[in-house]
Amino acid sequence: MSGFSFTLDATCGKARTGRISTPRGEIRTPAFMPVGTAGTVKAMLPDSVAATGADILLGNTYHLMLRPGAERVARLGGLHAFMNWDRPILTDSGGFQVMSLSDLRKLTEDGVTFKSHIDGSRHMFSPEKSMEIQKLLGSDIVMAFDECPALPAPRDRIEASMRLSMRWAQRSRDAFGDRPGHALFGIQQGGLEPDLRAESAKALKAIGFDGYAVGGLAVGEGQEAMFACLDTACDMLPEDRPRYLMGVGKPDDIVGAVARGIDMMDCVLPSRSGRTGQAWTRRGQVNLRNARHADDPRPLDEACTCPACRSYSRAYLHHVVRSGEMIAGMLLTWHNLHYYQELMAGIRAAVAAGTFAGFEAGFHAARAEGDIPPR
Amino acid sequence: MSGFSFTLDATCGKARTGRISTPRGEIRTPAFMPVGTAGTVKAMLPDSVAATGADILLGNTYHLMLRPGAERVARLGGLHAFMNWDRPILTDSGGFQVMSLSDLRKLTEDGVTFKSHIDGSRHMFSPEKSMEIQKLLGSDIVMAFDECPALPAPRDRIEASMRLSMRWAQRSRDAFGDRPGHALFGIQQGGLEPDLRAESAKALKAIGFDGYAVGGLAVGEGQEAMFACLDTACDMLPEDRPRYLMGVGKPDDIVGAVARGIDMMDCVLPSRSGRTGQAWTRRGQVNLRNARHADDPRPLDEACTCPACRSYSRAYLHHVVRSGEMIAGMLLTWHNLHYYQELMAGIRAAVAAGTFAGFEAGFHAARAEGDIPPR
Repeated sequence: MSGFSFTLDATCGKARTGRISTPRGEIRTPAFMPVGTAGTVKAMLPDSVAATGADILLGNTYHLMLRPGAERVARLGGLHAFMNWDRPILTDSGGFQVMSLSDLRKLTEDGVTFKSHIDGSRHMFSPEKSMEIQKLLGSDIVMAFDECPALPAPRDRIEASMRLSMRWAQRSRDAFGDRPGHALFGIQQGGLEPDLRAESAKALKAIGFDGYAVGGLAVGEGQEAMFACLDTACDMLPEDRPRYLMGVGKPDDIVGAVARGIDMMDCVLPSRSGRTGQAWTRRGQVNLRNARHADDPRPLDEACTCPACRSYSRAYLHHVVRSGEMIAGMLLTWHNLHYYQELMAGIRAAVAAGTFAGFEAGFHAARAEGDIPPR
Repeated sequence: MSGFSFTLDATCGKARTGRISTPRGEIRTPAFMPVGTAGTVKAMLPDSVAATGADILLGNTYHLMLRPGAERVARLGGLHAFMNWDRPILTDSGGFQVMSLSDLRKLTEDGVTFKSHIDGSRHMFSPEKSMEIQKLLGSDIVMAFDECPALPAPRDRIEASMRLSMRWAQRSRDAFGDRPGHALFGIQQGGLEPDLRAESAKALKAIGFDGYAVGGLAVGEGQEAMFACLDTACDMLPEDRPRYLMGVGKPDDIVGAVARGIDMMDCVLPSRSGRTGQAWTRRGQVNLRNARHADDPRPLDEACTCPACRSYSRAYLHHVVRSGEMIAGMLLTWHNLHYYQELMAGIRAAVAAGTFAGFEAGFHAARAEGDIPPR
């Protein structure tokens, strides 16, 4: 783990704040990672992503290996140089995307064979192949290759899948080898079954990873079930390693996950929402397509310092959303990512100050108030 | 014309360089105006447009009056505040767009009635209505309302249309009134017929305008015919007022128009091209969709200082064009607008230095060389 370390600075209840040090820079936790699926955080330039306060991006191994191809990215100097982002990058293993996006999958002990959703070409993923691809991409935080069923699923399916993932975790660890400055995270599985989660955590700890993800959640189980799972799942993971909840989530999911001991998250929601006219603010979700904004000279959020809020009216945002102008997606993605990073900064400050419970109460009170009423 | 003035600083052959002073800032001529059709230069934030070196934008009266509506823009503080652009804005009269975009047009002496291409609603444009709308938008340079046929057209159609436009020019002038700090430009018509162009210029000068546009070109007549027309058309217009060639053009159209005495131009080409993977450089047009770029680590133009050229490889640009990512349109639009503004800056410097002929020769020589060969 030379060149990669996690320092826990403070806790408040189960909530934690700290820093992940990497050769490419520090990641302040709890951290939200914007998703840069195919070598770009959609509708954003990298400087703008950094300006929102993001310390780290997520890249999707499945997408990048299919297009432009991992070998090509490596020849071009790695993903950081390719996409003009010099801070840390975490890549997923491809396991989740191959199950949700590709055609004609075939799962064996060895790995998954599948057809590309882009051009129908035939490919194979295995723990060894995933480690190789993530190394070619040059990612700073590499995820072990795993497999997980959509929930609800029968217990025996979840159990078998988790045990396969644990064997793949060992193969991922073996294939990853020793790469100073680069980290390998294991992924806990076991669905909503506490005993399977415990078995998975035990297996991962026996192998030993630089960080531990809680996988297999945010796949349709609902927030209540997810929180119930996190109530026990986090405690099963080492205290001195970062804990990463994959694919989460809405702002209230994030606050609730932090309250249960999560340090890192990622989600397409803020960027995807921004491209469909949806904004996230302290007061909840705002649909800029709604006609009530057409004549509203006020900013989306008068307290927000992002370019969309600083320089434009709701009326303008409404106009460009309705007109299908690219600037709508550009401004609203920027706003949403800015809001998410402000949320994380508020969380970190509250945990450090020992006032996270008050922060949580304020967060929920502002949302309960709802968006400002029409003028 | 208080608060609005044109200063001619130097000439070189027929090429001119100068400055248009307005209360919102200076416009260096020859000037290229990026097109912000519906309150946004597509795929760009206003700060980025300014960073390319643009002194002035063009807004489309037809689009803005239909959506979001001129009265609404006025209530929201005018187009500058609405779209977050505090430098000068020129608006067209709506005359050209209504003929090319709307449905069910009916042309009378009074004006044009038409159906919106957006929602089929019924509207009317007249010189008086166009002046009213452009005033509501708050544009700095207002264009007289005119009408022009697509070329080729029979001479009697061109003649009748020109004479109607001249009657409308007088009505535009009367309706515009006295608006200190705001300018009204007349539009010369007459197709490719020198005597009709002369008659039109005479009529416009008799009315008196703050600037004069050469209209009715770049509508399918070809570069040779356009240049032949400009060879005489510019000389018919007052020397001490800016001359604006509407809807032009490609880089070589621009250089040739300046050589014939044009001071201002606008065109959607650089922004539209940028959204379809086409780049314009010193060496001509480059199609980033082409497979030859897939592994090319070199920038689009190693001498260009725009963000696309400074921070990305051709391979990356190819990847994001092929993947349909928004960043492709964002980066290539930025590059194209940057290249256009660099071209204008080069033109201005050469005219000022008395070396425009050499500049022209260098411009054509670089293009004749063509894009850099594949590695």
